Amino acid sequence: MNLTDHKKKLYDQLSEIHTLRGIDALLGWDQQVYMPPKASEGRAAQIEYVSLLTHRRFTEPEFIESVDVLAENLDQLSDDDRVNVREVKRALDRQRKLPDDFVAEKARASAIGYDTWVKTRPSSDFEAVKPVLAQIVDIARRETDLVGYTEHPYDALLDAFEPYSKLSAVKPLLTGLAERLRAIIPEIAADFEGIGDPEGAYDESRQYAMGREIASDLGYDFQSGRLDKTAHPFMTTIGRNDVRITTRYFEDNFLPALYGVIHETGHALYELGLPPDRLGTPCGEPVSMGVHESQSRLWENLIGRRCSFMEYLHRVFSKHFPEAAASMDENGLWMHANKVKPDLIRVEADEVTYTQHIVVRMLLEEALVSGSLQVDTLPEAWDDLYETYLGVRSPTLKDGVMQDVHWFSGAIGYFPSYALGNLYNSMMLQTAQKAIPDMDEQIARGDFSQILAWTRKNVHEHGMRFTGPDLIKRITGRDLESDTFAEYVAEKFGVTEPQRR
Amino acid sequence: MNLTDHKKKLYDQLSEIHTLRGIDALLGWDQQVYMPPKASEGRAAQIEYVSLLTHRRFTEPEFIESVDVLAENLDQLSDDDRVNVREVKRALDRQRKLPDDFVAEKARASAIGYDTWVKTRPSSDFEAVKPVLAQIVDIARRETDLVGYTEHPYDALLDAFEPYSKLSAVKPLLTGLAERLRAIIPEIAADFEGIGDPEGAYDESRQYAMGREIASDLGYDFQSGRLDKTAHPFMTTIGRNDVRITTRYFEDNFLPALYGVIHETGHALYELGLPPDRLGTPCGEPVSMGVHESQSRLWENLIGRRCSFMEYLHRVFSKHFPEAAASMDENGLWMHANKVKPDLIRVEADEVTYTQHIVVRMLLEEALVSGSLQVDTLPEAWDDLYETYLGVRSPTLKDGVMQDVHWFSGAIGYFPSYALGNLYNSMMLQTAQKAIPDMDEQIARGDFSQILAWTRKNVHEHGMRFTGPDLIKRITGRDLESDTFAEYVAEKFGVTEPQRR
Repeated sequence: MNLTDHKKKLYDQLSEIHTLRGIDALLGWDQQVYMPPKASEGRAAQIEYVSLLTHRRFTEPEFIESVDVLAENLDQLSDDDRVNVREVKRALDRQRKLPDDFVAEKARASAIGYDTWVKTRPSSDFEAVKPVLAQIVDIARRETDLVGYTEHPYDALLDAFEPYSKLSAVKPLLTGLAERLRAIIPEIAADFEGIGDPEGAYDESRQYAMGREIASDLGYDFQSGRLDKTAHPFMTTIGRNDVRITTRYFEDNFLPALYGVIHETGHALYELGLPPDRLGTPCGEPVSMGVHESQSRLWENLIGRRCSFMEYLHRVFSKHFPEAAASMDENGLWMHANKVKPDLIRVEADEVTYTQHIVVRMLLEEALVSGSLQVDTLPEAWDDLYETYLGVRSPTLKDGVMQDVHWFSGAIGYFPSYALGNLYNSMMLQTAQKAIPDMDEQIARGDFSQILAWTRKNVHEHGMRFTGPDLIKRITGRDLESDTFAEYVAEKFGVTEPQRR
Repeated sequence: MNLTDHKKKLYDQLSEIHTLRGIDALLGWDQQVYMPPKASEGRAAQIEYVSLLTHRRFTEPEFIESVDVLAENLDQLSDDDRVNVREVKRALDRQRKLPDDFVAEKARASAIGYDTWVKTRPSSDFEAVKPVLAQIVDIARRETDLVGYTEHPYDALLDAFEPYSKLSAVKPLLTGLAERLRAIIPEIAADFEGIGDPEGAYDESRQYAMGREIASDLGYDFQSGRLDKTAHPFMTTIGRNDVRITTRYFEDNFLPALYGVIHETGHALYELGLPPDRLGTPCGEPVSMGVHESQSRLWENLIGRRCSFMEYLHRVFSKHFPEAAASMDENGLWMHANKVKPDLIRVEADEVTYTQHIVVRMLLEEALVSGSLQVDTLPEAWDDLYETYLGVRSPTLKDGVMQDVHWFSGAIGYFPSYALGNLYNSMMLQTAQKAIPDMDEQIARGDFSQILAWTRKNVHEHGMRFTGPDLIKRITGRDLESDTFAEYVAEKFGVTEPQRR
């Protein structure tokens, strides 16, 4: 086989894997959205079968050989081919280091962990889930040894979600930011004291119509997507021109569904903006979880919670809920949408305190992985860090260490991505604002096309051509930093940071 | 490999194929129910890929060898294994006779035929679709030669839908029945003159609620199924405990949606009644399209349109549409639900004239396949037969020869199954009524459990253990005949057949 044959093998196989991943996404979407309850066992078998097929395609010796040969001849490849070979090889290299037995053991422990967590969380029964969590942590530690690392074992886990990132870079950024935020959160939170949820009754079908209208206005094409209802909001890509989002509804408060929609729309816009002729190859894939989160949180927070957006939002809100809108002006909307309060639950956290939730988890993950913390004392360690960063302790473990599914389902090293999204997007938006000086007028009018075009051109269209750190440098001329986000928060909420006074 | 190994190979492979078919069903269901419009191209590729995988599993040399070895050692197998080997071998033998080139050519022509039909049907442009239809007929003729037959080439096509049936048996049954019906249709239709559609406005969501309630009452478990809305009603099996139905709604008439639901519920009850521990093997599969249709039409017509059902239906109808129900009593419901009228469209035909539509198609298929009729003169031949059997001619070809998708998408030999369903189920119900003497009292009460249990025990639970002809003999002690259906019609509509006068 010559290089052309190897390239053909690479792309044919990636195309098959892409098809299988889309099918897997449909099986998962349906499972969470419309599947009849008694079908769950049969569905699990279908999903497992597709995973197995995908794994087989990805580990086929002929495929691996082609990737290896191409990787040895990078200089003879086009730019895009080089990116694709680099990224496929990176994923393959990781996989090759993990024996089949290990992968199976991890999958089993993750499945049992998830099931156990679902059953034990309502009663905060940490003792019951502790053994499997200890096993998951042990597996994660072994994974770091198998994958290898040059600096810190945690890097081996982080790399699965945030390629080319290291704890030595991420940790100072996030802990440094958390320290600065810690100093100003009380002052910001004081401004929101007495602000409760918006009053009124919000019919679900009207919330749906409003969410749909706003997602459309942001640029989400309902000819290539859908908005459905699930217990937990998510975005999933089922295939070309098929990127779906979901949200959840509370009839006494329209904000969770609305910001769920905006957040998932941000994810969907990224997926729909990837170069269509590169789909299924790294050049047509998102950079990292952190960059993905930068796109969702850009629309949810930086755009969706700014002053000028309230002008637009109030207009749409008045259309769908005229009575409620009559008793809540743009300022009232802003206050409800931006309420800052140090609290227990990450997924309900505001844009300011969110980082603190992540830093707590990152520090605990680091300690668990390096062995300085054991699962036995995790609940206390959790509360101690919450006390430090947010001044709260969880009255029950279900709102404490048991609140997130991640660890219990085997995902350790994922959390930093959420907070890195804020660093990425605050730097991006600062640059975008220079390119679009009248951005706020556009937002107030409900015209988001230039912002979307900017993200398409600067982020989406590149796929994985640039790593996360390279991409932000290319856009802003600077390395990833947290100053921009800290300053954005201080300015938005009108506080002066102590060290800057 | 010994017989045990071959059996393991057989069942492992069938299990994989079953999983793939369920995935294919989900891809198809989603395509028709919820898929965003722009996703159609990507979805087609996903469906094609799953078909290819299924085909590969089914034609894998090791699998074929195992089936062949088992087929040579039937005497050493259990009863169920024998059935499974017999049926898998039958399907394999058919497939082995069709070269890959031929299968690809047929798939291509069918896809083009379908697309062309969709585009040309609205304007009745038969000339535009004629070339591909001629090609499809030519392919069908070649298929009969490739598959082989002992009596009539049409048998080779019929066998794909109605295993073990031959034209020499089916044709006299259906044409004989059609002659008898032809003699009494005018008298029956005269009783319904002046009966139009039910008056009133029928909100879609209330129609949905009514359909759901009735399907539940019939025994359809919504924990293992769903009811959604599509352009054309269908039933599909996505996996164990996942059998879904759809219907379509007209807000000026509740009957099409309602009887669509009951019909598809009948199909779903059959699928859900197949032995769960045999799913994916012939012992857990339906006998034939005709027996499947016997179950849908049993509930739709024999149960759903009988007098005693109107007592139940009127109660449910009054709950969902109290105003409309106040001006329509049980007798009015019966008249609307049973209106007999010789007309043009098969899918809208009543239970009496339905056979005529099928016989027209069967005779045309026979003539096309044997070469005595060419596609050029098909439209006239169609109308001539409609004139003979129903006394109507189509003013436009879209309501004539172009009304059904079947031929244009490559399905020739399918139609008889629809009418055979009526023969099967009228004989079944006659027997069931002897076992359940107070059937009508039960139906009037809305208690369908004994009827369902009877079909489960006598039909569903056997899977393909008996062929269609054997099954009906086993149930009734008689060979499949059309007298029972003809007599049922004459009695129900209170007419005396001329030859019996």
